[in-house]
Amino acid sequence: MTAMAGHSPTHFQWQVADRIARVRLNNPARKNPLTFDSYAELRDTFRALSDADDVDAVVILPNGGNFCSGGDVHDIIGPLVAMDMKQLLRFTRMTGDLVKAMIGCGRPVIAAVDGVAVGAGAIMAMASDLRLATPGAKTAFLFTRVGLAGCDMGACAMLPRIIGQGRAADLLYTGRTMSAEEGERWGFYNRLVAADALEDEAIALATRIAAGPTFAHGITKTQLNQEWSMGLEQAIEAEAQAQAICMQTRDFERAYRAFVAKEQPVFEGD
Amino acid sequence: MTAMAGHSPTHFQWQVADRIARVRLNNPARKNPLTFDSYAELRDTFRALSDADDVDAVVILPNGGNFCSGGDVHDIIGPLVAMDMKQLLRFTRMTGDLVKAMIGCGRPVIAAVDGVAVGAGAIMAMASDLRLATPGAKTAFLFTRVGLAGCDMGACAMLPRIIGQGRAADLLYTGRTMSAEEGERWGFYNRLVAADALEDEAIALATRIAAGPTFAHGITKTQLNQEWSMGLEQAIEAEAQAQAICMQTRDFERAYRAFVAKEQPVFEGD
Amino acid sequence: MTAMAGHSPTHFQWQVADRIARVRLNNPARKNPLTFDSYAELRDTFRALSDADDVDAVVILPNGGNFCSGGDVHDIIGPLVAMDMKQLLRFTRMTGDLVKAMIGCGRPVIAAVDGVAVGAGAIMAMASDLRLATPGAKTAFLFTRVGLAGCDMGACAMLPRIIGQGRAADLLYTGRTMSAEEGERWGFYNRLVAADALEDEAIALATRIAAGPTFAHGITKTQLNQEWSMGLEQAIEAEAQAQAICMQTRDFERAYRAFVAKEQPVFEGD
Repeated sequence: MTAMAGHSPTHFQWQVADRIARVRLNNPARKNPLTFDSYAELRDTFRALSDADDVDAVVILPNGGNFCSGGDVHDIIGPLVAMDMKQLLRFTRMTGDLVKAMIGCGRPVIAAVDGVAVGAGAIMAMASDLRLATPGAKTAFLFTRVGLAGCDMGACAMLPRIIGQGRAADLLYTGRTMSAEEGERWGFYNRLVAADALEDEAIALATRIAAGPTFAHGITKTQLNQEWSMGLEQAIEAEAQAQAICMQTRDFERAYRAFVAKEQPVFEGD
Repeated sequence: MTAMAGHSPTHFQWQVADRIARVRLNNPARKNPLTFDSYAELRDTFRALSDADDVDAVVILPNGGNFCSGGDVHDIIGPLVAMDMKQLLRFTRMTGDLVKAMIGCGRPVIAAVDGVAVGAGAIMAMASDLRLATPGAKTAFLFTRVGLAGCDMGACAMLPRIIGQGRAADLLYTGRTMSAEEGERWGFYNRLVAADALEDEAIALATRIAAGPTFAHGITKTQLNQEWSMGLEQAIEAEAQAQAICMQTRDFERAYRAFVAKEQPVFEGD
Repeated sequence: MTAMAGHSPTHFQWQVADRIARVRLNNPARKNPLTFDSYAELRDTFRALSDADDVDAVVILPNGGNFCSGGDVHDIIGPLVAMDMKQLLRFTRMTGDLVKAMIGCGRPVIAAVDGVAVGAGAIMAMASDLRLATPGAKTAFLFTRVGLAGCDMGACAMLPRIIGQGRAADLLYTGRTMSAEEGERWGFYNRLVAADALEDEAIALATRIAAGPTFAHGITKTQLNQEWSMGLEQAIEAEAQAQAICMQTRDFERAYRAFVAKEQPVFEGD
């Protein structure tokens, strides 16, 4: 078990309060681009979270009115142009490993998007479990605009599962910006909130979810991400096993006892 | 072949008229909870349907203004708290078997939702092929509120395929109620209808579908539920085979002859 | 490598200008039905496209105010009624091969739908990557109305991935018409445009996409169609490999150099 409250990353901001971790990229003057270093450190942080005992949910917040401008042109794209295949694959696997680490971290991740969320920034929002945005959020999977394919860090798999194949194809072939209104209407954003309420709403949502049965939430996350490629019969059997495990937690018994006593259950995550 | 018109279950209402079966849970005072007995009997009924020759569609109707309040707290949740793993898995597999039986019953199932459809009640709506609801329908996958995971009876597999991964995650992590308006907008409910028209509309829809080629409908149902986990190339080959089978039915010939004669086809299900 | 500009099919119209191919069925008096011959020739054309070096995108256009009325009743359905299984399977595989060829042709296909798009016509729109329509477009997967199942040419696999499982089930069981407004709201149509602007808008969209990195677009198309049946972890690894390939193209370097020079990149497809 790992304590993450004292985690002090070098390349982004990290704060844990009330068992909710806040992540914030820290180059607001340039709309928070990712660098080789911040990619790697984010990946390592989400990996460490899977074994943490003091964090129940993660919120990724904007900084200076923007979420993330994606891979830095000078720090990342310039060097990539000069790399050989072995080096390129090491890089693309590292970026994919960030998404795998977010999926595998065992607790809900909530993206709170304001301003620019493009390229790998849009991917970080996509790879979160829930997404809030402001009316001014501009989200673009713009890989095509830098000469690349739409299949970056899982986008061709995950984006169609969130907004449907036709809308995903539109965004990935054209690289165009999805407006916040489109994002909500298409199911990418769960809800739009005013910019000055965004952080409070995201923390409140994380807090509400974290007050639930956190062990069971981890199972929900695992199953949501595992069952897309299962047959329905296999998925139903997988859920029978997974839910039976949850029925042996004390949180399940706590909920029952609270119901009988006409009280609100207090979950403890075991 | 089985005749289901004379079926007389003990734990829910069952009526067959004009080849449409009506299912109605029968504890309206408590909003129609499921019990161990009604779960098992529903499973057995849907299993028997796969071999029935007198039912072309099933409609699940509300009773007393509510659809189903899910697993009964006293009949089911209390005993589960005391069970060992072998017993728990027997229960979760039985509930999953109800969904498998609904998917495998060979004819369309239409849920007509009014009032409360929560927990396993929401699952029964989800596992139906088509869903109508009233503006007052309140649908909640509230497993998290009783200390469990969202992966119940196939929800982590099926709900994202109906409403998208982001909206499914919202409902499954928070356990919140999906309003009827959200349900229609997100594609969970095919249509909203006034409460006093719900049953007539649901029966009319079932009747319209049942007037079509029922053997072919059974193939449609099989393929809709089988192809999610196939590659596209495999799915296209599977459909070439499945549709060729349907082209050898007399219903296909009936449709052609009716067209040439400028008449409405009368399908007979063979 | 194949030059497709000089392609002169017998059973539909074909024109290449500015590296955009236009397809138009050519029996407007009967709303452009498909025949055995046009099916086969379309399949062969899309297969040849996968190796073409002078076409970057394909637009399928209406003719005389209609897109396509599906398999011709007299040319196709009549003969099918008399066929044995070996012959039927040869036909259904040929139709499925048209969809496989569209998916495998290596460049985006855009459907521009006006008027009637039913049966195999609806399928050709579905199997395209992007879809525009006029407010008067009437789209119906009406196989059930001719006595067949909804699983035609991949519909039970692809339609739910575009509009969700519940809405797909509605269209496939009832055979009813999806209005243009529903089509846009559900994500089947990317955008609605006035009838007199449809062709210009579709060509403009194709031109805009074709001005992007066309090699990378081919990879996007491959991954969008391959990853549905992969696990998420596998899909992320597949994308790491696919994107690394794209990072070795000169188009990636062109985009970087243009950015540094504060110019618009000019992509060349290699």
